[in-house]
Amino acid sequence: MEIDYLKLAIDEAWKYQLLTYPNPAVGCVVSIKNRLFVEAHKKAGESHAEVNALWSAYKAFFSAPTLTSSQEIHEYLYKNHNNFFNEATIYVTLEPCNHTGKTPACSKLIETIKPKKVVIGWLDPISSHSGGVDRLKNAGIEVEILNDKRCLNLIEPFIKWTNDKFIFFKFATSLNGAYTGGYITKKESLKWVHQVRDKLDLIVIGGETVRKDRPTLDARMVNGKAPDILIYSRQKEFDKIIPLFNVKNRKVYISDNLDIINKYNFIMIEGGENLYQKVKQIVDWNLFIININKILNRKNYRFDDELEVIHCEKREDLFLWTQKT
Amino acid sequence: MEIDYLKLAIDEAWKYQLLTYPNPAVGCVVSIKNRLFVEAHKKAGESHAEVNALWSAYKAFFSAPTLTSSQEIHEYLYKNHNNFFNEATIYVTLEPCNHTGKTPACSKLIETIKPKKVVIGWLDPISSHSGGVDRLKNAGIEVEILNDKRCLNLIEPFIKWTNDKFIFFKFATSLNGAYTGGYITKKESLKWVHQVRDKLDLIVIGGETVRKDRPTLDARMVNGKAPDILIYSRQKEFDKIIPLFNVKNRKVYISDNLDIINKYNFIMIEGGENLYQKVKQIVDWNLFIININKILNRKNYRFDDELEVIHCEKREDLFLWTQKT
Repeated sequence: MEIDYLKLAIDEAWKYQLLTYPNPAVGCVVSIKNRLFVEAHKKAGESHAEVNALWSAYKAFFSAPTLTSSQEIHEYLYKNHNNFFNEATIYVTLEPCNHTGKTPACSKLIETIKPKKVVIGWLDPISSHSGGVDRLKNAGIEVEILNDKRCLNLIEPFIKWTNDKFIFFKFATSLNGAYTGGYITKKESLKWVHQVRDKLDLIVIGGETVRKDRPTLDARMVNGKAPDILIYSRQKEFDKIIPLFNVKNRKVYISDNLDIINKYNFIMIEGGENLYQKVKQIVDWNLFIININKILNRKNYRFDDELEVIHCEKREDLFLWTQKT
Repeated sequence: MEIDYLKLAIDEAWKYQLLTYPNPAVGCVVSIKNRLFVEAHKKAGESHAEVNALWSAYKAFFSAPTLTSSQEIHEYLYKNHNNFFNEATIYVTLEPCNHTGKTPACSKLIETIKPKKVVIGWLDPISSHSGGVDRLKNAGIEVEILNDKRCLNLIEPFIKWTNDKFIFFKFATSLNGAYTGGYITKKESLKWVHQVRDKLDLIVIGGETVRKDRPTLDARMVNGKAPDILIYSRQKEFDKIIPLFNVKNRKVYISDNLDIINKYNFIMIEGGENLYQKVKQIVDWNLFIININKILNRKNYRFDDELEVIHCEKREDLFLWTQKT
């Protein structure tokens, strides 16, 4: 069977899902001289997927300076592309942007380097972002729009937090479904959690988990900003020595209802099986982070449920993204 | 980053791991005209990975008859390749075979179609199988041998059953580690189990599982051959109406020791957490088949263990291959 290049771009984008907030997750493959280069958008304010992939391809064939800012890379490619990309095909999960925001417009760069063809997974749903396709076509570049639903799945969090809010439940477990008793998942996943917390504006956590784990819930591993906290609990009494209460510049609410969520935009809920069941109706996605190298002699989370899997990826742990059925 | 074509070949080969018995699992990618075609060896007696991948590539560019036998495809490509593959690069996880067995020699075919280059993940460890590399080099084809350990992992079952025997433990579970109470995994996985049983010569199963599940343990879903059975049990009394006793042309042993395993070559052990612990020292690999769409309100298998993961692949269920640490 033929290899699906768009899938390679999609899979790369998923590695940065949620970390790109408030931007969408985007992946890009550049195909040139029988070689393939794949990159994703990694963080808001940094270069877009297309730029990263083109730069990765360029550096494989030519010596080039070490450049990190999107502006620098755009300028360097403008000056030095030498029509190298004329035979390339670019596969990107989302229409190339046509506006200059924190970074220059990708469609301008692509128009300049003039690849043979651009294959686009999904058009940008934000109407003020459109125009990229027309620019490319007017430059004589062949454009194919696939309307591939996998690319819509990829940007679902982006669509939700742009229009209202996005809520997901994070559940960290061993291979055999144990979820209590301290750190279960690996350091790489813990770092990912800190990267996400830096982007979240609210974490919802159960009262029982707060009492047992006595967590901090900050983003110190990445020198990031700590989100506000809602402790979802009927009992209002908590030991104020618990570290989460003493992190600067954050609000902590204690409530037996979830109404405060409506004031927020990007929310993570974490807890055990009871909380999972309670918030099932309001979460958009669930994320199971599963340490597939570890079996623990502890009980599992236990209820009957059928899950719809959106994406399953092996990192050091397994990241299993699911949505409401 | 650049896409690793050999990895694409490796991942495809894994889909047929164990099903190729007594042959090794092999995958191949053909890179031509900026497109990639990937195939694997699927079953002993059928065409090898290289032939499948070359045929897949050929058919994407030219109309060709529907051919299924390896002999037919070899002959057709010999006559009709028209030097099409001269610009191709072939990536294969194992040295192309140089002998005519049930199917013609791949290295002869490759020598004839004369690609630019052949990249080989691992050399064939069976000395009588060698010679493929020399044939290709003598034909003026560039050959690169990567000695990629992932390709050695791929053929570990093959090496074990060729030299002595290969034993693996199969454990089917829900996402949250439940493993009792009837079919948990999906139909595609059940079919895979029947395909494997057709290749196995022995299944080892615990007495308790036999009494509870009353299984048949045959390969009827694929019209295959049923393996012999060892019921590992201290109690020797079993209800002979249980279907496994009534499958034709198979032996059933009941024993409180595992010695009979030494007479066999390709063995699957299945059971619960107790049997898993008992046979830990003798199994080569464990295979967890995990239904990631299903959470069950049942207890999990429960002990402390660290696993070394060899390969993790998403099929309809998750196939997690691990080995002794």
